[in-house]
Amino acid sequence: MAEARTPQAGRDLDRIVFFSDAVFAIAITILVLDIRVPEGLSPAELPAQLLDLGPRYVSYVISFLVLAIYWQAHHKVFKPITGYDGAMVWLNVLFLMAVAFLPFPTSLLGEYSEEQISVVIYAVNAAVASLLLVAISWYATSNHRLVGPDLDDEENRIRRVQGLAVPVVFLLSIGVSFFSPIAAMYSWLLLSVTDPLLRRLWSRQ
Amino acid sequence: MAEARTPQAGRDLDRIVFFSDAVFAIAITILVLDIRVPEGLSPAELPAQLLDLGPRYVSYVISFLVLAIYWQAHHKVFKPITGYDGAMVWLNVLFLMAVAFLPFPTSLLGEYSEEQISVVIYAVNAAVASLLLVAISWYATSNHRLVGPDLDDEENRIRRVQGLAVPVVFLLSIGVSFFSPIAAMYSWLLLSVTDPLLRRLWSRQ
Amino acid sequence: MAEARTPQAGRDLDRIVFFSDAVFAIAITILVLDIRVPEGLSPAELPAQLLDLGPRYVSYVISFLVLAIYWQAHHKVFKPITGYDGAMVWLNVLFLMAVAFLPFPTSLLGEYSEEQISVVIYAVNAAVASLLLVAISWYATSNHRLVGPDLDDEENRIRRVQGLAVPVVFLLSIGVSFFSPIAAMYSWLLLSVTDPLLRRLWSRQ
Amino acid sequence: MAEARTPQAGRDLDRIVFFSDAVFAIAITILVLDIRVPEGLSPAELPAQLLDLGPRYVSYVISFLVLAIYWQAHHKVFKPITGYDGAMVWLNVLFLMAVAFLPFPTSLLGEYSEEQISVVIYAVNAAVASLLLVAISWYATSNHRLVGPDLDDEENRIRRVQGLAVPVVFLLSIGVSFFSPIAAMYSWLLLSVTDPLLRRLWSRQ
Repeated sequence: MAEARTPQAGRDLDRIVFFSDAVFAIAITILVLDIRVPEGLSPAELPAQLLDLGPRYVSYVISFLVLAIYWQAHHKVFKPITGYDGAMVWLNVLFLMAVAFLPFPTSLLGEYSEEQISVVIYAVNAAVASLLLVAISWYATSNHRLVGPDLDDEENRIRRVQGLAVPVVFLLSIGVSFFSPIAAMYSWLLLSVTDPLLRRLWSRQ
Repeated sequence: MAEARTPQAGRDLDRIVFFSDAVFAIAITILVLDIRVPEGLSPAELPAQLLDLGPRYVSYVISFLVLAIYWQAHHKVFKPITGYDGAMVWLNVLFLMAVAFLPFPTSLLGEYSEEQISVVIYAVNAAVASLLLVAISWYATSNHRLVGPDLDDEENRIRRVQGLAVPVVFLLSIGVSFFSPIAAMYSWLLLSVTDPLLRRLWSRQ
Repeated sequence: MAEARTPQAGRDLDRIVFFSDAVFAIAITILVLDIRVPEGLSPAELPAQLLDLGPRYVSYVISFLVLAIYWQAHHKVFKPITGYDGAMVWLNVLFLMAVAFLPFPTSLLGEYSEEQISVVIYAVNAAVASLLLVAISWYATSNHRLVGPDLDDEENRIRRVQGLAVPVVFLLSIGVSFFSPIAAMYSWLLLSVTDPLLRRLWSRQ
Repeated sequence: MAEARTPQAGRDLDRIVFFSDAVFAIAITILVLDIRVPEGLSPAELPAQLLDLGPRYVSYVISFLVLAIYWQAHHKVFKPITGYDGAMVWLNVLFLMAVAFLPFPTSLLGEYSEEQISVVIYAVNAAVASLLLVAISWYATSNHRLVGPDLDDEENRIRRVQGLAVPVVFLLSIGVSFFSPIAAMYSWLLLSVTDPLLRRLWSRQ
C-alpha cells in the first residue's frame, strides 16, 4: 500500500533519500583507500613506484565519475516522486547494494587493468545498478503510482530513454572488451554525451 | 524525564534518527571493504581466484539485506515516537553498537563459511541487535511513554509480534547450525516472509 | 563577529552540528574495522584465535561507549547555542580532530591492552577531547555570547561541572595506570555515574 | 538552464550541500586509518615505535586542518548561492574528487615526509581542489548567475581574493620545496593568516 505525500510520508521519503545519499557519499569517499602508498622504499625508487600506481588513479577517476553520474541520476529519478511503498524501498535497497559494491570492481580494474575479466565485471556491476534505477523510475511513474498528478509525461518519457542509455552503454562495452579491454573502458566516456544527444534526437522527432 | 514533542524535542529526536541512519549507511557501505582483490596474480589464475571469493560475495549480500531489514525496522519503530529520554537514547546506542559490529561476523562468515562457529556468532549478533530494537519499541510504547496519543494499539501489537520474529528466526538458526551450518544460513531467508505471514495470521484471528 | 540566530545563522549552525554528527557516526562505525578476522586457520584453531581477540572486543565496547557519551555531551552543549563565530567553529574543529583520532588509541588498547602506555595515550586523547568540549561550552555561554537570553544559568553551572568531570576521570586514571593499567581502564566506568551523582550533590547544597 | 531558488530548487541545493558535507566528514574521519598500530612488538619496543610514527601524526593534523579550512571555505562559497545548474554541479563533483583524494598524499607525506615529491603531490592536490572551489565561486557569482539580487558585490570581491590566496600559498610552496621540503610544509601555516590579512589590506585601500 503506497503512502501518499502527507507530511509524514514526506519525512519518510526524505529519510530514504538521505540514506541513499549517505551510501553514495561513503562509497565515493572510500575509493581512495584502494590507492595504497608503497611502504619502505628508498627515495630513488619512490617516483617510479608512484607512476606504477597509474591504473589505480585511472580507476579512481572513472568510479568517482560513474558514482557521481549515478547519484545525479538517482536525484532526477526521485525528484517527481511524492510517495513510497515496500516494493520501491526494496528496489532502492538493491540499487544501493549494487552501488556500494562498485569499489570492488574498481579495485579489480586498478590492479588488473588490462584483463578483460576486470572490465566485464565492472560493466556488469554498473549495468545492474543502472537497470535497477530504471526499474525504480518505471515502477514509480507507471500509472502515476508514486508521483504527483503534475508529472510531465513527455519529459518523463525522455528521461526513461536517457536512463536506459546507461546500461546500454555498459552492456555494449562488454562486447567491445572481447576485442580490447582498454577500448571498452574508453567507450564508457559515451555516458558524458548520451543525455544531451538523446534529448536533441527526441525533440527533432 | 521524557521530553515531549516540542519543536526542540523534535529537533533532538531528528538528530538521534539521523545519527542512527548514518551508522547504518556507513556499516552497510564498508561491508565491501572485506572483499579484497587478490594481488600479484597472473592473468590465468585470476578467474579461479575471483570465484574462490564466492563465500565473501554471499556474506556481503546477506549482511546488506540484514542491515537493510534492520534499518527499515528501526524506521518503523521510530515512526510513532514523538519524544525521548535517557533510557531510550542508551537502548538506541546499544542497538547501534550491535549493528556496527555486524561487519565482523560478516567477515567471519565470508572467510569460514562452513564452520558452525561463524554462523552462531553471526546469529547471536543479529539476535542481540533485533532484541534491542524490540526493547526500544516496547519501552517507547508502554503506557504511551514516548508516543503520541493517536498510536494505533492494535497495529502496535502486530508490530511487536513482527519485531519478535526476527530474533526468534536467528535464535532458532543456532539450533539448526548443529546439524548444518549452511542450512542455518538459508533459514535466515525466512525473514523475508515473516512480516506478511504474521500480519495474515493475526488478521485471521 | 558572532552571528545571531537568524534563519541563515540557524541553517549554518545546523550544518556545523550535522558535520559533527557525521564525524561521530563515522568514527564510531569504523571502530569495528580494527577487529580483523584471522585468515587461513584450520577449523580446530579458529575458536581459540577468536577468543584471543578478546582485548579488541573490549576496546571496541569501551570506545563505542566513550564516543556515544561524547556525542550526547556535544548534543547537550549545542542545545542552548543559537549562534556561532570563527573561534567557536575552530574549537569545534579541534574537538572533532580529537574525536576522530580515538580509533588509534582504541587500536593500541586492543593490541597492547596490558601496557601502561596504551592506557595513558587513550586517557590523554579522551581528556583532550573532553576539555575542548568544555571550552566550547564555556566560550559559548560566557556573557551569553552565543546563546539566547533564556539560558538557565543555574542549569548551565551544573552542566559545566558535569562536563569537567569527564576530563578529571581520564586524567586521574593516568595516575592509577602507574599501579595497574587494567584498574585504570575500569576506572573509566565512573563516567556512567558522574552525571547523576554531581546533579544530586549540587541540589543538596 | 539554471534553476532559481524555488522550494524545489532549495531542496535540491540542500541535497548537493549535504552530499558535499558528507564527503568532507568521511574524508576527514578516515585520515586516522592511515596511522596503523605496529603489531607484535615487545613492551620494550613499543614506545620507540610509537614515536617513530611521528610524521604520520603530523600529516594527520595537517590534513585535518586543511580539510576543515576547505569545508569552511565551501560553506562560505555556497552561502549566497540560491540556485544551481549542470555546470555548477559538475564543478562541485570535481572539487569533491580532489577533496576525497587528499588522504592519498596525506599518507604519502606520513610515510615519506622528507621527500620533495610527497610535498609537491600534496601541494598540487590541495591547489587543484582550491582552484576548483574558486571556479565554483566565480561561476556562481558572475552576472549574478546563481545568487540572489542582494549579493554584496564588495564583500564578494574580498572573498574572491581570499579564495585565490589558498592555491597561491600551495603553488608557492612547490617552489620552496626545491630548497627544503620541510620548510614548504611549514609555509602552509600561512593559510591561517591570509584571510584576516587580506581583509585588512583590502579595507585600507
